[in-house]
Amino acid sequence: MPTPIDRRRFLSLSAASVGLAAYAAASEPTEAADGKVMPQAARARAGARVILFQGDSVTDVRRDRERAEPNDPQALGGGYPALAAAELLSGAPEAGWRCYNRGVSGHKVFQLLERWQADCLDLEPEVLSILIGVNDFWHTLSSGYEGTVEVYERDYRALVARTREALPDVGIIIGEPFAVTGGSALGEAWYPAFADYQAATRRVADDHGAAWVPYQSIFDEALTRASVDYWCADGVHPSLAGHALMAEAWLDAFRTLASA
Amino acid sequence: MPTPIDRRRFLSLSAASVGLAAYAAASEPTEAADGKVMPQAARARAGARVILFQGDSVTDVRRDRERAEPNDPQALGGGYPALAAAELLSGAPEAGWRCYNRGVSGHKVFQLLERWQADCLDLEPEVLSILIGVNDFWHTLSSGYEGTVEVYERDYRALVARTREALPDVGIIIGEPFAVTGGSALGEAWYPAFADYQAATRRVADDHGAAWVPYQSIFDEALTRASVDYWCADGVHPSLAGHALMAEAWLDAFRTLASA
Repeated sequence: MPTPIDRRRFLSLSAASVGLAAYAAASEPTEAADGKVMPQAARARAGARVILFQGDSVTDVRRDRERAEPNDPQALGGGYPALAAAELLSGAPEAGWRCYNRGVSGHKVFQLLERWQADCLDLEPEVLSILIGVNDFWHTLSSGYEGTVEVYERDYRALVARTREALPDVGIIIGEPFAVTGGSALGEAWYPAFADYQAATRRVADDHGAAWVPYQSIFDEALTRASVDYWCADGVHPSLAGHALMAEAWLDAFRTLASA
Repeated sequence: MPTPIDRRRFLSLSAASVGLAAYAAASEPTEAADGKVMPQAARARAGARVILFQGDSVTDVRRDRERAEPNDPQALGGGYPALAAAELLSGAPEAGWRCYNRGVSGHKVFQLLERWQADCLDLEPEVLSILIGVNDFWHTLSSGYEGTVEVYERDYRALVARTREALPDVGIIIGEPFAVTGGSALGEAWYPAFADYQAATRRVADDHGAAWVPYQSIFDEALTRASVDYWCADGVHPSLAGHALMAEAWLDAFRTLASA
């Protein structure tokens, strides 16, 4: 039943109500018990509580790459990472999350692999979010890219395996690449071929115990409420409204990590 | 009682649950019944449903002034306007809101007056949000500005009166200027002098039937949960977490307009 004061409910997306406290408690910082100075990475890890958003333009959203501090609105860009971070940071200040965005427009999964040491492993994320794959398909149509869905799945598995090897305890959130029906950049060639990339992504997520964000069905449902132009005009790059839907779906996946 | 699926509740900040539909229905677009071409402003008005955020740096937050489209993340800046807009746009797509930010860093209320025609009246907002006043006091300490609280209140009243005259049906939201206790830019000179500016702002809001956003008490309460560095390190410019608190408080005020 709706009440006049929904803010309290909204703000109740805090540690106690959504399991963030449990998640915080489950991950104790490492300590240099012998008194030695910890390596830089280890020190960053101990107090950092890093959440890293990785992906392509859907994650990038014109983030300012000159700004290096975590939790900085411009560094987080104009999309779901900033919106999700805002919600987490205001709802659970005691968690001490440090949120970074390292999405790069145009990237495919092999390009994440190329920059993974600096743009993921060195940041030692406690939670890693990946949304990739739309360019792995799209660029076969638009740019002569010759990678197949088999290459995509192989590289994606290598990416996640390398991450698990370096960071055994990392919580991984994998987002479903999506194409919003009717978007101006889409065409018949997307169907059913793109669905293979979505299915491959889901297999990778399931096989590695990653939380899954079902963005395609989120947007499918949204199309019953408003047009594709409202949510994601070209079918690939969401509007602010579309990013807000993504942020909520992402937070759902984050909570499943917390309660796992 | 918290449930595992808080997203449904979060998403339920939709038209039906928070009165946005009622608000939408209360304001019918004007029509050119005689078939004549409507003037530009009138045409913009008819389909526009403009929400305008006005203020100083706390509203500006590095918005990109080269981007003119409504609902654009970069044009809305990195603060509460973008966060509030994201929530409104995803929760009530049927309302068709067009959100603009025209906050300008450093501005005092007389500077809003100087640019009011182009930066407010010409946009014909259906909802106008104003957050101003901290510089009207701060700059008397930092920049030799000689305006008094009486000048501030007089100019603020003139601003709102001019708005009501041009746009009789506009819904107005006035935010309380705030100074977060312990912030690095604050000092003894702020107390109790700044409270006079807050009280003057409240009088203006009450006398003109504006919705009120009690930002000072929002931040006072937040300080029981985390430090001033977490919410608003200098006491004036909030972090992303602080802006998220502001967005929720702003949405509360918006709902009071909707239900009035």
